Amino acid sequence: MTHTRNDIDVTIREVGPRDGLQSIPRSMATAAKHRWIAALAAAGVGTIEVGSFVSPRFLPQMADAALVVRNARLIPGLTVAALAPNFRGARNAFEAGVHQLVIPVSASNEHSLANVRLTTEQAIDEAKKVFELRDSISAEQRPAVEIGISTAFGCSLSGPVSEDWVIELAVHLATAGADAVHLSDTVGYANPAQVKRLTFRLKREIGEKVGAAHFHNTRGQGLANAVAALEAGAFALDASLAGLGGCPYAPGATGNIVTEDLVFLVESMGLRTGIDLEKLIAVRAIVAEALPGEPLYGHLADAGLPKGFRHASPMFSA
Amino acid sequence: MTHTRNDIDVTIREVGPRDGLQSIPRSMATAAKHRWIAALAAAGVGTIEVGSFVSPRFLPQMADAALVVRNARLIPGLTVAALAPNFRGARNAFEAGVHQLVIPVSASNEHSLANVRLTTEQAIDEAKKVFELRDSISAEQRPAVEIGISTAFGCSLSGPVSEDWVIELAVHLATAGADAVHLSDTVGYANPAQVKRLTFRLKREIGEKVGAAHFHNTRGQGLANAVAALEAGAFALDASLAGLGGCPYAPGATGNIVTEDLVFLVESMGLRTGIDLEKLIAVRAIVAEALPGEPLYGHLADAGLPKGFRHASPMFSA
Repeated sequence: MTHTRNDIDVTIREVGPRDGLQSIPRSMATAAKHRWIAALAAAGVGTIEVGSFVSPRFLPQMADAALVVRNARLIPGLTVAALAPNFRGARNAFEAGVHQLVIPVSASNEHSLANVRLTTEQAIDEAKKVFELRDSISAEQRPAVEIGISTAFGCSLSGPVSEDWVIELAVHLATAGADAVHLSDTVGYANPAQVKRLTFRLKREIGEKVGAAHFHNTRGQGLANAVAALEAGAFALDASLAGLGGCPYAPGATGNIVTEDLVFLVESMGLRTGIDLEKLIAVRAIVAEALPGEPLYGHLADAGLPKGFRHASPMFSA
Repeated sequence: MTHTRNDIDVTIREVGPRDGLQSIPRSMATAAKHRWIAALAAAGVGTIEVGSFVSPRFLPQMADAALVVRNARLIPGLTVAALAPNFRGARNAFEAGVHQLVIPVSASNEHSLANVRLTTEQAIDEAKKVFELRDSISAEQRPAVEIGISTAFGCSLSGPVSEDWVIELAVHLATAGADAVHLSDTVGYANPAQVKRLTFRLKREIGEKVGAAHFHNTRGQGLANAVAALEAGAFALDASLAGLGGCPYAPGATGNIVTEDLVFLVESMGLRTGIDLEKLIAVRAIVAEALPGEPLYGHLADAGLPKGFRHASPMFSA
């Protein structure tokens, strides 16, 4: 994770256009994706995961990923991120011009096979090939590659996951060339004590390479885990506007943690995200218009900001 | 707060029959309340706030509070709590035989007037009269009186509330005779940094008299605040089964934090609540039957327990 901005404390990486959209069956028009991404950037979101470079046979919602990346690159100052599950996807993402690529490597072999049709070992090998490809790109154009350790806090197929193994895997990939490594609670099993312990250990082992912790809100624990990650040394968090996509395991439950609620929490704690909450809440209207009838989650948009609320981010404090 | 049980780490005080029911317009039948309370107790909930001793003109849902208390007292081992906003309500609650009485005293004078038609100073005087009445009861029968500092983290009428004033008020009431004092995020404004700071200060000042922190989930931050309170020294938390009653400020948002989700979080962290989650989730059916069509909130009931999950509470670990 690059922490190049010194006017913010916590980097919020918006993953709605990737994780949110891939969780719902219908597709969003490319032009709507661009309006959404541009509005997020205008609200102060500095990093957005705009799509996933996977076969359109599996995820037709992501068929326009290259075009979405190229459009997003035109937005000044925005770090354009995308996900790719393998070398082929990574090559396509690099060609499209991503600034940051996320590659999932699952700590659970069963989950890895079910999710990306690779064993964990094969996924590690793919990641290493991607590091080589990245290194072949000129320094000025070179994207950052961040590994997401999926099922780092437990797996819905195989149950508990060894914490020692999660840390070993993270260290192995950081040493092999990842620019950053983050822990992902793919199935919503994590609790704050576990998040603190694993984040602390990760921080101790890979220091500045700790990436954007990725939590789901499957059992309501998402924001508590986010706070735990920050307290243990993470500087960045994934979240999805309006919790788009929900959770396949839990009707009525959000999938990713909700960006608006997370930014409110972080700013309330006195930490700067650089994001304007009123502008961020207004972005929900773009999603609602582009995907009519799709449930939008989150509490802040309904409840509104507290009376007398002030952002920690200085540009909004006046 | 009495911490008489040494087989649990965190006391969960269920407030659904009081705070949940008073937030919805229709009334639950007395027999249904008793089934609900008995089922909660059978799931391991050791303290339940079963009603509010207020004028039935204002809250007809609570008109049967005395009868509900008397029924609940028949459940072996259960600590029967209730709320009263003034001396008259407290006397009625004592006559009904509550083990524990909660009296709200708002840190915000504006909120105090709007909520209980007393200035904060008048509410303090009422509380002191209740302490005297409590002291006139024989030691074996004497109930505990816990003060809840309402709007301790901010007020929707007057905005920010002085943290020094909140602590001063809490200390004054603890010194004047309260058995416990807790902080209440009445309107869902609190954040984890503030909760830690205020709970730390409260703990330093009144030590073992720190009561059950009371959070709402109005802006999604409820469980993060609950974890913060535990980390800063609270041993007890209020919560409402299924988040019953929702939040008048936020359609679709839960009011109180959801008991099932909270117990899952606390047990996941390795802290014992003494509550069996499967039995607790089953209690939702009683509420659904008694209040058909009423929205029930919470994530765990939809998502289910993680594969391989174990309670921290030893009686359920086998």
